Amino acid sequence: MDKFAVLGCGVVGSGVVELFLKNKALIEKRCGKALEMGYILDLRDFPDRPYADLLVKSIDPILADPEVTVVAECMGGVEPAFTFVKQCLEAGKSVATSNKELVAAKGDILLATAKAHDCNFFFEASVGGAIPIIRPLHKCLAANDFSAIAGILNGTTNFILNKMIKENMDFSTALALAQEKGYAEKDPTADVEGHDACRKICILSSLAFGKHVYPESVHTQGIREVELKDVELCAGLGYAIKLIARVQRLENGKILPTVMPMAVEEDNLLSQVNGVYNAVMVRGDGISKVMFYGRGAGKLPTASAVLGDMIEEVQLSHTIPSQTWVNAGTDDFIEDFSAFTAKRYVRTTSADVPALTAAFGEIGERTVSTEDGETVFVTENAMNAAAVDAAAAKLAAQGIQVLAQYPVLVS
Amino acid sequence: MDKFAVLGCGVVGSGVVELFLKNKALIEKRCGKALEMGYILDLRDFPDRPYADLLVKSIDPILADPEVTVVAECMGGVEPAFTFVKQCLEAGKSVATSNKELVAAKGDILLATAKAHDCNFFFEASVGGAIPIIRPLHKCLAANDFSAIAGILNGTTNFILNKMIKENMDFSTALALAQEKGYAEKDPTADVEGHDACRKICILSSLAFGKHVYPESVHTQGIREVELKDVELCAGLGYAIKLIARVQRLENGKILPTVMPMAVEEDNLLSQVNGVYNAVMVRGDGISKVMFYGRGAGKLPTASAVLGDMIEEVQLSHTIPSQTWVNAGTDDFIEDFSAFTAKRYVRTTSADVPALTAAFGEIGERTVSTEDGETVFVTENAMNAAAVDAAAAKLAAQGIQVLAQYPVLVS
Repeated sequence: MDKFAVLGCGVVGSGVVELFLKNKALIEKRCGKALEMGYILDLRDFPDRPYADLLVKSIDPILADPEVTVVAECMGGVEPAFTFVKQCLEAGKSVATSNKELVAAKGDILLATAKAHDCNFFFEASVGGAIPIIRPLHKCLAANDFSAIAGILNGTTNFILNKMIKENMDFSTALALAQEKGYAEKDPTADVEGHDACRKICILSSLAFGKHVYPESVHTQGIREVELKDVELCAGLGYAIKLIARVQRLENGKILPTVMPMAVEEDNLLSQVNGVYNAVMVRGDGISKVMFYGRGAGKLPTASAVLGDMIEEVQLSHTIPSQTWVNAGTDDFIEDFSAFTAKRYVRTTSADVPALTAAFGEIGERTVSTEDGETVFVTENAMNAAAVDAAAAKLAAQGIQVLAQYPVLVS
Repeated sequence: MDKFAVLGCGVVGSGVVELFLKNKALIEKRCGKALEMGYILDLRDFPDRPYADLLVKSIDPILADPEVTVVAECMGGVEPAFTFVKQCLEAGKSVATSNKELVAAKGDILLATAKAHDCNFFFEASVGGAIPIIRPLHKCLAANDFSAIAGILNGTTNFILNKMIKENMDFSTALALAQEKGYAEKDPTADVEGHDACRKICILSSLAFGKHVYPESVHTQGIREVELKDVELCAGLGYAIKLIARVQRLENGKILPTVMPMAVEEDNLLSQVNGVYNAVMVRGDGISKVMFYGRGAGKLPTASAVLGDMIEEVQLSHTIPSQTWVNAGTDDFIEDFSAFTAKRYVRTTSADVPALTAAFGEIGERTVSTEDGETVFVTENAMNAAAVDAAAAKLAAQGIQVLAQYPVLVS
């Protein structure tokens, strides 16, 4: 019999307990052995819950119990989670975590610690909630040389953009609704500014390309500036504006991770991902492309992913080699954002097509002008930020303003 | 160092060789050890290929070589694949197969053989080609009690239906085009009649619910009877007709697997799966729902899945307990098709709503009548086949004919 401990009994931790108790028999069958809940670490008291006798307020009894082979870390934040997880791994106990902040900040260290002590550090729940993505990436797709990953990795911002797209709600109203429904925090910064999606694309980039990618090296732009007008005009051209977390491998071998609102063509399935759902598209040389879709957050969806990791961990007696990455050291493998090029959706104050073409090059056929004299179009050329700025400057000299622009996702 | 053998050097087998040679370095890294190609079994000669020296025409040298730890079976068909795979497993060699016919017919026996000899029998490539579905189901989602699976599991029929939906092509023309493009065989029976999709839903049902489901116990209906008129009228009501392979667990604990054309609502992502792509939606108590999408067939996509299995197999020293099912023996766990109920899309010869309602109960608001006097609608009630027949008989007594009907997918 194996025992497990749960660190942190908030939303996700209590979900792990709930789902384990509900499906204990089938979980044990899939583990191939008996599994018992040993400890729940939380500083709070939960006297009324059936498992109150399992509550501890220190990591020590968990570390000291040789029957505990697996630990679920659901505390969130870097500390004390990092210290506790490292101690568990050093004691040879495998850890499953839902904590993307921890993995994005300390993944390389914790993976090395797990390897040194022949146990495993799994984090399926840290990206895309219920969606299987981490294990498919390093196991099912392990024969592939990856070229790009693009996803909708934050449900809160997707909910907000979806309300803007489908119900013509402006950003502030949609954000307030997300907060009312409990999808957005009181302080929505991490979601709205793209930091949450950034942590997740760091994790996927690290896993797909083998070296730790830190959030600070990712160009990250949120959705606070997205205007309802652009959402509507973009839809008129056949695109949906989505917050896309993306990484691509360039011809020079470097990778370029980004988080920003992008215009996604209607025939790309990512444009059809609505509400709080997440989706991830992966490109590789064997698969062409595959997509994963599901609930990106929530109590039981996230708990499902944590428990899935724990079920595999109790079966493993050694560190698996496929799910890992290393510290990049001084290796300069992340390309500067100036190398990012894409076709652009552009909104300007003028319908003067010759002037627009002189500045932006050929523009697509689906140019639309509005009653107030504004014009939107999509460029034929892939442009980097500097080229967009230069085009805008050229137009400004003629008294034409570029009011908004978004890169178009090619996937 | 581990060595592997490839049984069958047709499309998939040669894809395994090609992708392995292309990505050998990263495959070995993910394996955590060196991996070499040892043998290729095929009755044909390939003197011009670089690996001609590895060709053998008998299974014996493969069975006799203790360095061969993993075997890729890409022959197709039940025999001699079954005999060879069983011999490999009995020799303690793990097998990865792309052969859905083999898994659907003999999965329980081969899983038991693998277990008896402490090796593994994997078949990620047998369902959905490149799409990770087998491993996510039994690993990532292992904490879930599954309630339903619904998928587009045959690319050929999806291509044909898609041509009908998007380009108003009739069935025969679309089939001929699929044959011309190499998506459909000269004898398209297995695809068009739903047998291929049936084998795949058998595999998914067996894995999700733990007992072997044989193709003979699945109600299977193909797309040969689907008329362009229904595809168009159904689209007018907001549905796409898709060949859906599905299994649901009923309240009595039995399961009900089916393969048939169904009307899929536009806001269901499955309705947006176009061309030769496949997709699978899985429902469970933890995840709510997740979907997997990608190329359901093809040389490299299928090879990617076979190699992904092989990469995990070389890392494993024991049979894993989560990916298995048993022979159902005399256990009557598959519900009769008469228990299948769904709302129905119906096309009739009359617009007489009171008469239609008297027969089918309340009908949806989006009733549409055509110029030639036909009327299509969707019932509010979920009905089984007998109830549909009874309603049709009631209308027939009034001189009204039911020209076509399709169940509506609820997912």
